Amino acid sequence: MAYPGFGGYGGYSGQMPGMQMTMGQPIPGAVPNMPHGGYAGYSAYSGTYSAAADPMWTYFSAIAGQDGEVDAEELQRCLTQSGISGNYSPFSLETCRIMISMLDRDYTGKMGFNEFKELWAALSAWKQNFMIIDQDRSGTVELHELTQVIAAMGYRLSPQTLTAIVKRYSKNGRIFFDDYVACCVKLRALTDFFRRRDNMQQGIVNLVYDDFLQCSMAI
Amino acid sequence: MAYPGFGGYGGYSGQMPGMQMTMGQPIPGAVPNMPHGGYAGYSAYSGTYSAAADPMWTYFSAIAGQDGEVDAEELQRCLTQSGISGNYSPFSLETCRIMISMLDRDYTGKMGFNEFKELWAALSAWKQNFMIIDQDRSGTVELHELTQVIAAMGYRLSPQTLTAIVKRYSKNGRIFFDDYVACCVKLRALTDFFRRRDNMQQGIVNLVYDDFLQCSMAI
Repeated sequence: MAYPGFGGYGGYSGQMPGMQMTMGQPIPGAVPNMPHGGYAGYSAYSGTYSAAADPMWTYFSAIAGQDGEVDAEELQRCLTQSGISGNYSPFSLETCRIMISMLDRDYTGKMGFNEFKELWAALSAWKQNFMIIDQDRSGTVELHELTQVIAAMGYRLSPQTLTAIVKRYSKNGRIFFDDYVACCVKLRALTDFFRRRDNMQQGIVNLVYDDFLQCSMAI
Repeated sequence: MAYPGFGGYGGYSGQMPGMQMTMGQPIPGAVPNMPHGGYAGYSAYSGTYSAAADPMWTYFSAIAGQDGEVDAEELQRCLTQSGISGNYSPFSLETCRIMISMLDRDYTGKMGFNEFKELWAALSAWKQNFMIIDQDRSGTVELHELTQVIAAMGYRLSPQTLTAIVKRYSKNGRIFFDDYVACCVKLRALTDFFRRRDNMQQGIVNLVYDDFLQCSMAI
């Protein structure tokens, strides 16, 4: 059964402006409805993978230092130097912090190289989606466009929730790339948290206060 | 019955360094265990209150404009001009956004004068707490000090959750005023959200996915 609220691939009935989509096909960067730990389109690395031969390793290892991990400030430098934001503004420290939180399963506040690669793949997909709707390369998109992107990523949300989300990440009625990515990171992380606790996959969970705060405060 | 996890006034067994506390007395800025809408120590305005005679009205009305409300950018200017941050750095836009979300019960993304006054009172109390622990006026406090403040505000959280929270709001192992306030705002808003759904006041709720995201994405 498709999980209500997100990941139901076949339910998308709209079409994003300028985006060539096939019905039933999730767009990259979404959280698909599959067991935790596997994500379609990225994070699949074979056992023979060699970090040293990876160009991303250059960015990462130059900043990570001896412990082989980066904190939020280091991640910000790493992403800025890699140029992944392209012509868009570099990521803010706040957005880098929630990127770390999204993948920080042991609450160290840091990110290793494998997580960095997982993040990179998600960022690349999200950036691609953003560029599709930001056709005039203004660096911003409109509120209704973000609403469409969220729906197209497979999230099934009420109009009220969608409105609350897009307003939260807008500035003067438009959404900048950094805020869009922050929104994508949070949506994925919070959905992932919720789904792991939803044993019946019914879209409803029993949450204790401490667990609720541990998740929602960290993201 | 005292709500488990927060607001249990009498349960605090520690003492913050440098802070004169009376057992059983919550420190200002906490979310007390009382019906929603009333907060001890602030937001109590009589029916004869006149906005025009209030000095805060000067800051607010100069920026709010015709609609009588401020968005996050306007709130940032308002708070910066008021000087409430004192010698600490002015609030970031991100922190101003979650301040709006904390009190934005109709999801307009804006704040009226009554909410502004409620925010002001909470900020004043939080600032006072921060200054008590930031005795050398360095502008930052240590992680264990924030842990103690959170516990002293009446939040009953597991050590793991406390650790996750303070790490999330730290930079290079220290907590800046702006991040401390962001942490306080989120703790209050998320706790308020949770408590309103916890009909039995048992510290556990049934949450549907859409409702969970509406709250946790907006804060």
